[in-house]
Amino acid sequence: MTTLIFGHQNPDTDAITSAMTFAEYQRQLGNTDVEAVALGEPNDETKFALNYFKHALPRVITSAANETDTVMLVDHNEAQQSVADIKDVTVTAVVDHHRIANFETAAPLFYRAEPIGSTNSVLYKMYQEAGIAITPQIAGLMISGIVSDTLLLKSPTTTATERDILPKLAKIAGIDLQEFGLAMLKAGTNLAAKSDLDIVEGDAKSFNMGGLTVRIGQVNTVDLNEIYARQADLTATMQQEATKHQYDLFLLIATNILDSDSTGFAVGTGLDKLEAAFGTKFDADHRLALPGVVSRKKQVVPPLQKAFEA
Amino acid sequence: MTTLIFGHQNPDTDAITSAMTFAEYQRQLGNTDVEAVALGEPNDETKFALNYFKHALPRVITSAANETDTVMLVDHNEAQQSVADIKDVTVTAVVDHHRIANFETAAPLFYRAEPIGSTNSVLYKMYQEAGIAITPQIAGLMISGIVSDTLLLKSPTTTATERDILPKLAKIAGIDLQEFGLAMLKAGTNLAAKSDLDIVEGDAKSFNMGGLTVRIGQVNTVDLNEIYARQADLTATMQQEATKHQYDLFLLIATNILDSDSTGFAVGTGLDKLEAAFGTKFDADHRLALPGVVSRKKQVVPPLQKAFEA
Repeated sequence: MTTLIFGHQNPDTDAITSAMTFAEYQRQLGNTDVEAVALGEPNDETKFALNYFKHALPRVITSAANETDTVMLVDHNEAQQSVADIKDVTVTAVVDHHRIANFETAAPLFYRAEPIGSTNSVLYKMYQEAGIAITPQIAGLMISGIVSDTLLLKSPTTTATERDILPKLAKIAGIDLQEFGLAMLKAGTNLAAKSDLDIVEGDAKSFNMGGLTVRIGQVNTVDLNEIYARQADLTATMQQEATKHQYDLFLLIATNILDSDSTGFAVGTGLDKLEAAFGTKFDADHRLALPGVVSRKKQVVPPLQKAFEA
Repeated sequence: MTTLIFGHQNPDTDAITSAMTFAEYQRQLGNTDVEAVALGEPNDETKFALNYFKHALPRVITSAANETDTVMLVDHNEAQQSVADIKDVTVTAVVDHHRIANFETAAPLFYRAEPIGSTNSVLYKMYQEAGIAITPQIAGLMISGIVSDTLLLKSPTTTATERDILPKLAKIAGIDLQEFGLAMLKAGTNLAAKSDLDIVEGDAKSFNMGGLTVRIGQVNTVDLNEIYARQADLTATMQQEATKHQYDLFLLIATNILDSDSTGFAVGTGLDKLEAAFGTKFDADHRLALPGVVSRKKQVVPPLQKAFEA
């Protein structure tokens, strides 16, 4: 019976590719009856990566128990993030880089986790330790997972391990790391395929600030020019949404995930409060520069709340 | 603040020595502020091993939070087997060979477990992978843990890993594996320090079989001659206990944990049922040979029950 190997639901690139690199690791150790599958459709970033390195997309499953007794987990361990019928199968191995919670087995198992930037970073170490050669194709998968999870080494989750191994893997894969990494991350943001409403509302939340309803959306990009080019349409959409839902202020934060910088756009009342909150002014193009800002929860909402309630 | 490293409560030799070998591993990786401690007094087997390889006994603790914020666990992960205030400290690393249950962290951590014979087997692999030389003193600790958990490679929990590494470690430590292993296991059984009543009653349970009260005790040894030498005193004690507590039959199973063979001694009524149950006769020395019998629960009670109720 084939052992299924998979990452978490709503899979990101590290979840998909680490299942594939761990499956290959198992095969190299002689455990050939394994299959890397996915708990959901790969996203655009992952599709770009798999296509780039000429890998087929993994099969998507919604049940494990209907076809096997044993599974191996990568990039997660918590039951609610795993396959729906995880309780009906035996987990024989886990490779991960997250906390451990809501995970329990009846028998001893293989478990390998480290507090580093990606599951593929852990797998790189395991390949090295076992003396398994990393082929260009496997290197491509590992690069994709590491670039995705560390935003090309720019995320604060990056560790010395990723800084060390990513250039080595790029050499094996024979790629230009910056060029590929940016292209892959950009494919993931894929704003060209999104409507103005998707960009404005896709991740928006409402907040009550000083009696006003403030709507704050956020969109990630690797090139703010993609947003700037659509600025007029986006703000028009924000205005329509504000009118329709009676938002007093609509703020859209466009975040460059590579620079860890953002730009704000806003319509409605209280633009002065917005400027006060961040100690800066909208420029001639109606853009508010927010250098170093990436987190709505930690870096946008608190100062805005304070400014509106002052 | 020193990170404490410890195995489970009621520590056995693998729990104590794996804390020590993992502490040395951490030191070799540059994490020098660690201390191997124990959650209970080392047993006689462990004391013999540490003394043999000239290691001091670890300090015994009952609380971790009163002296540190961070701990590393070896040879266990379940909270109820750990230090009483485990919830008040952060677990930064685990090395283990048991199932995972009742274990949860708030943050990512180092976790290394494999379904093999001992925690020291996992640590041996980690030393190899990290390129850390195993000194004779460290080899001695690893040997002690592996011999204890696998009963010198005789236990059904033994894997190919232990068969492979134990001779290599013996070579490093410069010891005769059989000689040391037997001496250590024998120190653990330590029957010389136990009273006749301790041996007879220490692990005894009562069973109702065909209307009779059958008492069955079990004692482990590495040398049945230790039991034979005390046979007259032991059976006299069994007779006294049977009279005192109205047991119809008192059976003592002496198990050689190295050979996985046992010898039975009995007083009371129903000795014929006993012989029928095992298809053999008491010999001239009043001993019942029980080759291959090690489990009271699985190999003694069922046939006896059947014989008494026939």
